[in-house]
Amino acid sequence: MADLRIAGGRVVSTFTGEVFDADVLVTGEVISGVVPPGAGPEAAEVIDAGGRLIVPGFIDAHMHVESSFTTPAAFAWLTLPRGTTTVLADPHEIVNVAGKAAMRWMIQEGARSPQTQLWGVPSCVPALAGMEYSGAHLDPEDIDELLGWDGVSALAEVMDYRAVVAGDQRMHDIVRVARERGTILDGHCPNLSGEELSDYLATGIDSDHTKNTPEVAVEKARLGMTVMLQEKCLLPEVVGALTALPQLPPLCLVTDDLAADHIAAKGHLDHIGRKAVEAGLPALDALRALTWNPAQRLRKYDRGVVAPSKRADLLLLDGELADFAVHTVIAGGTVVARGGTATYPEPEVTHPFAGSVHIAEIDPDEFRWRLDLPDGAHDFRALQVNPVDTYTRPAEIRLEVVDGEVRWEGKVALLWVRNRHGRPNTSCVPVLGMDLAEGALTTTYAHDSHNFVTLGTSRRAMRATAEAVLADDGGVAVAHAGGVVARLPLAVGGVMSAEPTAEAVAGSRRVREALEAWGWRHANPFMSVSTLTLAVSPSVKITDLGLVDVLARDWTPQVLDCCH
Amino acid sequence: MADLRIAGGRVVSTFTGEVFDADVLVTGEVISGVVPPGAGPEAAEVIDAGGRLIVPGFIDAHMHVESSFTTPAAFAWLTLPRGTTTVLADPHEIVNVAGKAAMRWMIQEGARSPQTQLWGVPSCVPALAGMEYSGAHLDPEDIDELLGWDGVSALAEVMDYRAVVAGDQRMHDIVRVARERGTILDGHCPNLSGEELSDYLATGIDSDHTKNTPEVAVEKARLGMTVMLQEKCLLPEVVGALTALPQLPPLCLVTDDLAADHIAAKGHLDHIGRKAVEAGLPALDALRALTWNPAQRLRKYDRGVVAPSKRADLLLLDGELADFAVHTVIAGGTVVARGGTATYPEPEVTHPFAGSVHIAEIDPDEFRWRLDLPDGAHDFRALQVNPVDTYTRPAEIRLEVVDGEVRWEGKVALLWVRNRHGRPNTSCVPVLGMDLAEGALTTTYAHDSHNFVTLGTSRRAMRATAEAVLADDGGVAVAHAGGVVARLPLAVGGVMSAEPTAEAVAGSRRVREALEAWGWRHANPFMSVSTLTLAVSPSVKITDLGLVDVLARDWTPQVLDCCH
Repeated sequence: MADLRIAGGRVVSTFTGEVFDADVLVTGEVISGVVPPGAGPEAAEVIDAGGRLIVPGFIDAHMHVESSFTTPAAFAWLTLPRGTTTVLADPHEIVNVAGKAAMRWMIQEGARSPQTQLWGVPSCVPALAGMEYSGAHLDPEDIDELLGWDGVSALAEVMDYRAVVAGDQRMHDIVRVARERGTILDGHCPNLSGEELSDYLATGIDSDHTKNTPEVAVEKARLGMTVMLQEKCLLPEVVGALTALPQLPPLCLVTDDLAADHIAAKGHLDHIGRKAVEAGLPALDALRALTWNPAQRLRKYDRGVVAPSKRADLLLLDGELADFAVHTVIAGGTVVARGGTATYPEPEVTHPFAGSVHIAEIDPDEFRWRLDLPDGAHDFRALQVNPVDTYTRPAEIRLEVVDGEVRWEGKVALLWVRNRHGRPNTSCVPVLGMDLAEGALTTTYAHDSHNFVTLGTSRRAMRATAEAVLADDGGVAVAHAGGVVARLPLAVGGVMSAEPTAEAVAGSRRVREALEAWGWRHANPFMSVSTLTLAVSPSVKITDLGLVDVLARDWTPQVLDCCH
Repeated sequence: MADLRIAGGRVVSTFTGEVFDADVLVTGEVISGVVPPGAGPEAAEVIDAGGRLIVPGFIDAHMHVESSFTTPAAFAWLTLPRGTTTVLADPHEIVNVAGKAAMRWMIQEGARSPQTQLWGVPSCVPALAGMEYSGAHLDPEDIDELLGWDGVSALAEVMDYRAVVAGDQRMHDIVRVARERGTILDGHCPNLSGEELSDYLATGIDSDHTKNTPEVAVEKARLGMTVMLQEKCLLPEVVGALTALPQLPPLCLVTDDLAADHIAAKGHLDHIGRKAVEAGLPALDALRALTWNPAQRLRKYDRGVVAPSKRADLLLLDGELADFAVHTVIAGGTVVARGGTATYPEPEVTHPFAGSVHIAEIDPDEFRWRLDLPDGAHDFRALQVNPVDTYTRPAEIRLEVVDGEVRWEGKVALLWVRNRHGRPNTSCVPVLGMDLAEGALTTTYAHDSHNFVTLGTSRRAMRATAEAVLADDGGVAVAHAGGVVARLPLAVGGVMSAEPTAEAVAGSRRVREALEAWGWRHANPFMSVSTLTLAVSPSVKITDLGLVDVLARDWTPQVLDCCH
């Protein structure tokens, strides 16, 4: 006798693309039969699929739990209803804050949900070693140790790609210890091409999930990289270039970073599937890129296809395949979600890694930009953002210096980075590209060192948000002219919420709306702001130590004219 | 500095199907660069590819070394020039003769050549446990032990598929111990379909390489099986059914059993590639089925695509891709073959497992068919062969019995099976379907128990071939009216040659020609004869213990009329 029969459904084969009438039998955690309707043994429970499509559970081959602002078990509760039954997570956000203990905690937390959470060892902690300070530092020996832990499947995205290309010993040693273990090696090398790409690949790294031009996306696939497409990559010209190839390469659809409100409002991998189809990827190819291809990538041979003996991670879909409209979610043989909601209780909140913001107070003189320059106008490097992605251009702005202080208020937005992991480092840079009213944002979630970052047009608004975040023991706060208008407490290491999921969703949404109302018009406003400190994403970024030319992997001057 | 540069070639990407100009750099055993022509570091040696196509080395996901009649290192020497750089071998032939010691020896032998030989643990030793005797018997504990050996990658083809479908405890235990280890589980289930197929797959087996109707091939792919196509499967109707699917499933092109003369005259995986294209598989899909797909199946993540960091198993092809005309073969960074010939010395012959034919002599009265039946005409079960594949139909023949002896000579061909592993068992059956002159074949290579098998139309010719094979310490001999005309000594366990490869090739060819001249007209004469004893291939076969109805997995009567 089987435990469960899903009857009256239409299975979609990820092997052949056929849709066929079949009953699916489940025994324990496993598919025990895929049989003609009515055939096979009796089952203790019968689900009437009502003509719905039956597909394998979706698999996310590259993502960060922390980017949802929820902790692992809460994340599962939020994303399982969207069809995501397996993830390979890179916990470099929380590990940058709290080191190995954080990784151990994430693995344990991840094990207490019906979602399969696999873990990669963060390869770049901090992201740009030697040019920023986070709360941790992992050397090759540390990474070798973590690679031996249960629950670990991969070396997570090797983001310091300029160092790899330059032959940096530490980065090469990190990749080498992973390669010697034969583990999955994931990459991050936006628009890397030609001989440099070949050098990067020669270390063994063979995946990428960053935004590339269509030509570079094709070049990467050509050279055996598993091209992983997140939402910002799902442009018609990129998808079109891939589908136009003589053969479609093995693609994976991934989420990378999706905030809680985005997941609640739009979806998770189901949403990415829809975006892929909108961009021109045929629905069956999108399905494979959500199931079989990532299963193979993750070396999980027990999933990715609806077949006897495979793990019973199954979805019932409403409507057409291309809708990726998840109705029922079965994980390991158990129904865990229906109609967009989890059918099991929300996990209890947890609050480890408290007190991670090592800043005593916000000084009244905070955000005064003091520089030893002669009075007069000076040219300063600014970061120019764009409304579509996280790319920043180097720009210039002329500002007056009076009495050793740059007069920036009322002229420009200023981005202020203050180390919050016990060091006194601060740096700042003007930001251009948005038409901002008075206001500010402070965040302790700022890729990837997660320092205490404030962006604002007035010191008053900046101090208000900074104080709010300090009071919340980490998180995000947005202020307009009248004061703080949105808060997202992230008390778990300053990067994840210790509150019920609905609060994280609401806070995340309020932050997004407040940013947009402030004038930050972007496809993904919080992502855009929180990557101004990500010095492994082109092309000019800022760390707690200074301004970085990403492609040169070197400092770039803050002051452009003479005298400094 | 690199060790080798392959310049002036055109790489075929197994990821995108593109053909592009690139130089391939090799350092040690590994591809260290795939770069624009002329780019990258200097190399100690340069090969001018002269415009040839550069593809990954071919990978055989299911085969038997013994079927070539050559031992592992000799096999590599014979097949590397054909582009086969990696194989997953199932040594059930020699293991059926000589047990675990044979497996250990095959692994050691396989390690001493530039070809990568991976090994599966034979799951069915003997093939039809309880209904035949070979020279060994592996139970679940034995298989569990072997699965732990270095060099072992898989549980090899689970051929006793009727037992699996029937829920046989021993077979289920064998598959279970392998599944618990998470290893590759290969199958063999000709034309299995519907609920029985689902039950077979539910054990975890997810590949098949047998001949199926187009509908069943599609059904298997639909249910997540890796469909492996050997030469006899490459029919237009089968390939057409697969290519007509909404998505092409992951296919592998395999050899299964190819004799030495066939390899020498026609080729190995290169030949299978050409046959696939002839049958309608697009050349790029055939290439993927020879490289990336089997690499993924075999979980060898370091091959199957021409990319930096992957193993330098590379082929230079003449002409068009669809020709699969292998010119130069590089294995692990070293040139091992050019123009169809190995560039390294033929390995020394080896001769283990001598004296494996435990038969003292051939009696003058050998092959007299004595049965306790009343005088007169009786109806007997016969095996009816066909000229295309190994399928046998149950047929009938009426023969006279005189003085307790069936008078078969001059009326029909008789197949005689005598255990050669120390037991006295013999059985026999008439064979219909070929128009044979006087003659006989004796072989100690007879799938899968490799007993002493003689097929002939006269006792004189049968005795002559039996004596020749005994004298050779195992092998194959064919006689026509005048006596023995072809011999293929197989002194290694009675299944592989202990002579130089050229002798195995010549002997194999002479046997094939002699069979054809005798009247055995078949696409693969020796395969047809040597599978008359393979009681896991439909539909009626003979073992040393008697006649088997393969689908019922039960005895079937030799005498069809009353009295017996």
